Amino acid sequence: MSIQQDKWTPAAENHANRAAKAIDWNRLTKFPTIGIIGGGQLAQMLYQSAISLGIEAHLFASAADESAPKYFRDITRASSESWTPPEIYHFAQKCDAVTFDHELVSPNIVRELEKRGCLMLPTASTLELSANKANQRQRLDELGYSLPPYNICNTLAEIISLGEHWGWPIVIKPSTGGYDGRGVFVVENESEANSVFNSLIAHLPFVVEPKLIIDAEGSVLAVRSTTGECLAYPMVKTLQVDGMCREVTSPGDFPEAITVEAQRVAENLASDLDAVGILAVEFFSIGGKLVVNELAPRPHNTGHITIEANITSQFENHLRAVLGLPLGSTALRVPAAATVNLISSSNNQNIIPRIPHALEIEGASLHLYSKSSRKSRKIGHVTVTADSVEKALAHARLTVDRLSGLELSEG
Amino acid sequence: MSIQQDKWTPAAENHANRAAKAIDWNRLTKFPTIGIIGGGQLAQMLYQSAISLGIEAHLFASAADESAPKYFRDITRASSESWTPPEIYHFAQKCDAVTFDHELVSPNIVRELEKRGCLMLPTASTLELSANKANQRQRLDELGYSLPPYNICNTLAEIISLGEHWGWPIVIKPSTGGYDGRGVFVVENESEANSVFNSLIAHLPFVVEPKLIIDAEGSVLAVRSTTGECLAYPMVKTLQVDGMCREVTSPGDFPEAITVEAQRVAENLASDLDAVGILAVEFFSIGGKLVVNELAPRPHNTGHITIEANITSQFENHLRAVLGLPLGSTALRVPAAATVNLISSSNNQNIIPRIPHALEIEGASLHLYSKSSRKSRKIGHVTVTADSVEKALAHARLTVDRLSGLELSEG
Repeated sequence: MSIQQDKWTPAAENHANRAAKAIDWNRLTKFPTIGIIGGGQLAQMLYQSAISLGIEAHLFASAADESAPKYFRDITRASSESWTPPEIYHFAQKCDAVTFDHELVSPNIVRELEKRGCLMLPTASTLELSANKANQRQRLDELGYSLPPYNICNTLAEIISLGEHWGWPIVIKPSTGGYDGRGVFVVENESEANSVFNSLIAHLPFVVEPKLIIDAEGSVLAVRSTTGECLAYPMVKTLQVDGMCREVTSPGDFPEAITVEAQRVAENLASDLDAVGILAVEFFSIGGKLVVNELAPRPHNTGHITIEANITSQFENHLRAVLGLPLGSTALRVPAAATVNLISSSNNQNIIPRIPHALEIEGASLHLYSKSSRKSRKIGHVTVTADSVEKALAHARLTVDRLSGLELSEG
Repeated sequence: MSIQQDKWTPAAENHANRAAKAIDWNRLTKFPTIGIIGGGQLAQMLYQSAISLGIEAHLFASAADESAPKYFRDITRASSESWTPPEIYHFAQKCDAVTFDHELVSPNIVRELEKRGCLMLPTASTLELSANKANQRQRLDELGYSLPPYNICNTLAEIISLGEHWGWPIVIKPSTGGYDGRGVFVVENESEANSVFNSLIAHLPFVVEPKLIIDAEGSVLAVRSTTGECLAYPMVKTLQVDGMCREVTSPGDFPEAITVEAQRVAENLASDLDAVGILAVEFFSIGGKLVVNELAPRPHNTGHITIEANITSQFENHLRAVLGLPLGSTALRVPAAATVNLISSSNNQNIIPRIPHALEIEGASLHLYSKSSRKSRKIGHVTVTADSVEKALAHARLTVDRLSGLELSEG
């Protein structure tokens, strides 16, 4: 595949390219304009940070049922979900740098924009890697990072053979198309494997793993600037339910050695993959050993906690990195914090009447995404900072329970 | 003056009025819309908080050279600086509640809007009081609050007689028209008094005070909801230079008894004046005794520090109060913090090339207002949180020095 060849050779060339296009603050007489592709909650929260910095921000979004178009002043509406190069090029040309709300953007389009002189961050190469789980896994393996046991499968026979070898159940992750639990399939037997294979054949190859016994899950955000400056955030602990992140606590209660190792891995990965902006690295702890589960080259759900808990939020640091500004301190500014995601339990839920009751909980910082309710959709999150993780988590859970119409934890 | 009679009688009536108009969250199926009159940095920072809460926000602004129009999606442009009732009414009708970026709005227009059924918060009565320093001083006196020594003067002869009685210099504060130092005149003798009197005759009567020896200045924000719930923020210490707030530190290093007293006074004032939203109360400490210097019924420059330092920022709590939501905790979430204002030293300063150098300072949270530089104009602020006020202040000063092109404090 020619994409594969394009992708990893030109780190030096990427650097040179970026240097030529990077924002020269010495010459600026007006604030630079950042373009953001995609209109979700990450774009919404990036906008809040852009406002503090005085940065102009321009949104490229398609669907109406998104978060950010409710608030951005400058919006280019894509004419369809399948963004076409002419309109996205017109948009990118108006911006000093372009970044992303999500990585579901064709790397080919991004590469074309790069060729036309647009500063796209993360780059097409980095996006390509994160958009394809099989490529990602193989690349990390080549680089020598510790990974869960896995195979890349192209046929049902290979999958079934792995099920027999490792023992059922096994886990199937299609290369593309999945996020928020929609890309992870636990199959119990040959017949389920057959059904998953046939329904996801468009997303071959698959990453196939044994069902692991995970001690804990954690995440570290690295942030890397166009200048090469790179910092890691403190490691957080995450709780995933049905493949979606439900809770984040900071600091994660991992042993010091694990935390230091995870931060070093995240920084190295950002550099090895030539990432610019936030690179979120999700880890599993398996039998006390750390393995890299997945990457995302953008602000990440496990980093929302940084808005209240850390000196510089992931959103501000993403902007600083992309704009070539010095990075801000990633240190915690509070003893402890917890974030709990608000996930729709059904379609057409109306949470608005529940807001007053929820905001009675002390210390609740509410972030709502202005998305319509759809079962299992993340529609907001709540962060609480406190003296202890336990207290922060209890208050954040209670607030989310009240927003969800559940109050079991109150009794 | 009939305004005077209108003003203070109808607290009960105000309450009843508000109750009738207040937002009923139980019945909402979409997020309420808040209207903000005035396009300055307070509107800009209110917008950032509105985004987190999912609130719709609609701006009414006139001049182009303002902060908030750069970011708001929904803007009604006033056709002139002197806002006319038809257009402002059209704007207010589209909003569930209307609040203010500044208090330089004709209370008569606001009262007219109230009569037409719009929920204006703060109310015309509260605005009227804050817009007129003589009325404000007299009202606080009637309510029994401790104030600096003062007289209300209508003639030059009265002023000169006070200068002779107290000894020159004395301080003249016109009733109306002043903010950020432009409303405080220190006159050294009869001739200067004469000149100030003649140039400000349109702003009679004047509040006239002896030149006080002030130990320290501080500020407490009270926040009061439409429901009557009221909280005070911890007291901060402020440093004024040329009548403008230059620095804010939190916690202020006042004796515990002073802090408790100041919080109690601020809460009582909010209730006595029937304020809704933030009420900023500026205090002087004179010979260890606390007196109320001035009020502002809106988010306040001395409260910007709450964005990083307190669990709920003044902007979010202002919105919660106006929308009838439970108030958020006002407690500090960090040990210490400092805010330093960025004030233009000349016209047409271009600070943009200095931003990278300024952001090298550890822990600097930058807030730029996107205003053109004009001598003595506040164009931004920097907040730093740290283990001690001294460290926070040193870093915030250094950042502002770098933005201003001064680096003396580095040497």
